[in-house]
Amino acid sequence: MTKSALQIARAAYQPKLPKALKGNVKAVAGAATQSVADQEAIQKLFPNTYGMPLIKFEATDEAIEFPAINVGVILSGGQAPGGHNVISGLFDGIKKLNKDSKLYGFILGPGGLVDHNYMELTADIIDEYRNTGGFDIIGSGRTKLEKEDQFEKGYEILKELGIKALVIIGGDDSNTNACVLAEYYAAKNYGVQVIGCPKTIDGDLKNEMIETSFGFDTACKTYSEVIGNIQRDCNSARKYWHFIKLMGRSASHIALECALQVQPNICIVSEEVEAKDMSLDDVVTYIATAVANRAAQGNNFGTVLIPEGLVEFIPAMKRLIAELNDFLAANAEEFSHIKKSHQRDYIISKLTPENAAIYASLPEGVARQLTLDRDPHGNVQVSLIETEKLLSEMVGKKLAAWKEEGKFVGKFAAQHHFFGYEGRCAAPSNFDADYCYSLGYTAASLIANGKTGYMSSVRNTTASADEWIAGGVPITMMMNMERRHGEMKPVIQKALVKLDGAPFKAFAAQRETWAKETAYVYPGPIQYFGPTEVCDQPTKTLQLEQGK
Amino acid sequence: MTKSALQIARAAYQPKLPKALKGNVKAVAGAATQSVADQEAIQKLFPNTYGMPLIKFEATDEAIEFPAINVGVILSGGQAPGGHNVISGLFDGIKKLNKDSKLYGFILGPGGLVDHNYMELTADIIDEYRNTGGFDIIGSGRTKLEKEDQFEKGYEILKELGIKALVIIGGDDSNTNACVLAEYYAAKNYGVQVIGCPKTIDGDLKNEMIETSFGFDTACKTYSEVIGNIQRDCNSARKYWHFIKLMGRSASHIALECALQVQPNICIVSEEVEAKDMSLDDVVTYIATAVANRAAQGNNFGTVLIPEGLVEFIPAMKRLIAELNDFLAANAEEFSHIKKSHQRDYIISKLTPENAAIYASLPEGVARQLTLDRDPHGNVQVSLIETEKLLSEMVGKKLAAWKEEGKFVGKFAAQHHFFGYEGRCAAPSNFDADYCYSLGYTAASLIANGKTGYMSSVRNTTASADEWIAGGVPITMMMNMERRHGEMKPVIQKALVKLDGAPFKAFAAQRETWAKETAYVYPGPIQYFGPTEVCDQPTKTLQLEQGK
Repeated sequence: MTKSALQIARAAYQPKLPKALKGNVKAVAGAATQSVADQEAIQKLFPNTYGMPLIKFEATDEAIEFPAINVGVILSGGQAPGGHNVISGLFDGIKKLNKDSKLYGFILGPGGLVDHNYMELTADIIDEYRNTGGFDIIGSGRTKLEKEDQFEKGYEILKELGIKALVIIGGDDSNTNACVLAEYYAAKNYGVQVIGCPKTIDGDLKNEMIETSFGFDTACKTYSEVIGNIQRDCNSARKYWHFIKLMGRSASHIALECALQVQPNICIVSEEVEAKDMSLDDVVTYIATAVANRAAQGNNFGTVLIPEGLVEFIPAMKRLIAELNDFLAANAEEFSHIKKSHQRDYIISKLTPENAAIYASLPEGVARQLTLDRDPHGNVQVSLIETEKLLSEMVGKKLAAWKEEGKFVGKFAAQHHFFGYEGRCAAPSNFDADYCYSLGYTAASLIANGKTGYMSSVRNTTASADEWIAGGVPITMMMNMERRHGEMKPVIQKALVKLDGAPFKAFAAQRETWAKETAYVYPGPIQYFGPTEVCDQPTKTLQLEQGK
Repeated sequence: MTKSALQIARAAYQPKLPKALKGNVKAVAGAATQSVADQEAIQKLFPNTYGMPLIKFEATDEAIEFPAINVGVILSGGQAPGGHNVISGLFDGIKKLNKDSKLYGFILGPGGLVDHNYMELTADIIDEYRNTGGFDIIGSGRTKLEKEDQFEKGYEILKELGIKALVIIGGDDSNTNACVLAEYYAAKNYGVQVIGCPKTIDGDLKNEMIETSFGFDTACKTYSEVIGNIQRDCNSARKYWHFIKLMGRSASHIALECALQVQPNICIVSEEVEAKDMSLDDVVTYIATAVANRAAQGNNFGTVLIPEGLVEFIPAMKRLIAELNDFLAANAEEFSHIKKSHQRDYIISKLTPENAAIYASLPEGVARQLTLDRDPHGNVQVSLIETEKLLSEMVGKKLAAWKEEGKFVGKFAAQHHFFGYEGRCAAPSNFDADYCYSLGYTAASLIANGKTGYMSSVRNTTASADEWIAGGVPITMMMNMERRHGEMKPVIQKALVKLDGAPFKAFAAQRETWAKETAYVYPGPIQYFGPTEVCDQPTKTLQLEQGK
């Protein structure tokens, strides 16, 4: 394997651990916990894993001898920087407990457990992946682990390999499923513990006990690097508006964090659009107004950050899409006979007036996409909409109209970007390298202490790693009941951007200035070796949330 | 101005200089030079600046007192990382000659000279921009400085400000124009020297005396960072082919350098496509074959690097576009009456059979683009073609056909990326920071020695900066006569990728292995503070060209 100079140098980095985990460790139990809502329903569904106490690890002089243990690990869902460090922290943690402990990786996600596809992760393999990005050590997958026959199939291989604990590294859904599995194995007395680790670049798995999900730090810094570069270009060439879409469908944390880092002219926050019941035209008008104001000052350039999930947060668009789904499902046969050039008018004639008007306002390409590309369930594929192009096209149209009315005096030319894959597998920042390693190490301590249905938790993360607080949170504590596919299900509450939270408020307090002035900040690439203020800062989101 | 931690830390970096420039400097003249071709014609056009000797700067014990001098500087054309360091090197260089020297910047490119739009660049301003990316200190522009009345308008302001030397930082065309201006002012005895500096991320301004243009190093490293991240994602998710287009219309140096850095499965080199007279279908077949071969091994993922200018290098596409340009210009009126849904068939019926067949093979969107979007001269806008989507769509179609024939057994799903603006204004790597500062400092020495019509030259750039060789090259030496807009013009020869050059040969020797295996390298982000093998390596292109 050919390696870059940075890969080689970075392999030698020793991630930092909380002080409490460095020597002998004891688990201190806190108060019993409750779920965030629907306590009765959740308790009923999780009789064995509900109400458990918070766990905090503390240093102790007392050395305990642990028997060797076999542990399994699964990477679930989309990649996030630092996954390999969770695994190396877990590996080092169980080896410290007993050098004869073994770690098995299930291949290509939860499917590997069900299909008995696995490999032993030896020291040689682990060493190849320390401090690297990606999930390629064992691969990841999106199989949902939620059915009893999957649990039983999984148990077969766990039994065969003598695995007593399984660590599932994933987002909110995967951790919900980890808890269901923990409950199932506990109810069956199978003697297999299940521990979760909070992963997702989207930043929407967080709460009082989980300060941040891993990968958010590195991904946002990587996006901010390239957005900063684009802003410097924008400010040098002074002739383009750059519309930059950022990954993250279910929450706008990434766009907001990047905005705090780079100070763009505009950043749309989906949660605000929904809360204010803004229409697509409202969003377009908001952007066009900022463009026109800058043009009046002679500045025909700027940057707009757009969260990937925006369209799904616009209430009126949601209603349009819902009606389109229903209509096209009911009239598929008739629609298939309509000539392509007549489809748009046909759809408009069939929709309710409100939805017809919105549909008619959409650019041709987007309108066609909404009727043609449907997923296997017959639903419109919203994720295929190129929101950045949709918005810039509509802004351009509005500005052209304003120009005729004398309300816009400038030029408008747009460039488009979408960043997602560029950051999901970046090599982890020092923060993510340390945080992930600590999460994995903490998972090993939870296993040693016989815990199941817990999520590995590392807190106080704006302090130095030494001061971080390691422990465990019962996953049921984060749950509530939500309707999914028509059924009420226990799920971990997703953390959307809070409009009364410190990060949004810091953004809202400055955005008018940013819109008018050119206040760009250029964060530059992630640094691993330089001064600590360059290399070791957590995200602005985390700092603001913790009052820093 | 809010600054990131890295901006602040990086401002303190002191760029390295060649040893010869550190103390007192003397100019040593070499042999007289000749243009690379068309010597007689070039000499006739440049009687005052032709045949001058190469200049090399050497250290001397003799201190010479220089009078204060006023110097002007212009940034011309597209941004490239390091432009601000050329200016700070120039500033420090003329201040070292005499502390009362002054530097004036012309604003928004060559147009600033003609329109008398300028600012004095004082130490305070310069200090704000050291080691930063972008051209925003004075902005850049694309006005071509090529007419006598522009030269005369420029001279007015130069005279007014007492400017005795002008430094033009630009690509091949801008340096050609710098030389025309040098010749004009020399012929008129205006007493204004003109010095060029080799800028372009495209890497196509290079020759025996100019080893590399500045910005190429940083831009390629930035692209390679994000391509590497995508490759790690690709290798973790194992379900997408990523088609990645890279900036650079007139040469494939960027794509080739990135390929050498990241080892993708496929990289298309335009110069090879042209040399082998490959058709679009040949390129598509080449990619589809690699996809099918990987699929046969169970690997339904990979990466393809595509130079932005590819379509213009495919001989058959050039012929199609030429016929389309002519036909649409002659039949604009008739074509405007053809119904949109009939346009494609109409065009096919009118083209020669060879071109009609190619046109018919194009995806609908691209075919429409070729007939609808024309520039002010009526020409097809090739640059608007999304080559990465064109190729993946055609590859998908071919694979679908092969699947029916049993020749393809896998799945094919594509993601698309285009990187350009992400790297043009990145903060310069150590290499570019040092190289640019040295180029600017060298320009000051050329000015001190009364030179005009020279390009600042820093060579031996794979050695440590101490050992770099600073000097000047007569711009006429790099010229030949080429047909431009129907007229023979003296221009600096553009450096395309040489198929018998070491970089291409190194790539060609490995590409079959890369296509089959997953040999990805992950360069990671540019580092400024770490070990020298991480922070200070020049490009692979430069190392291979210099036999390293």
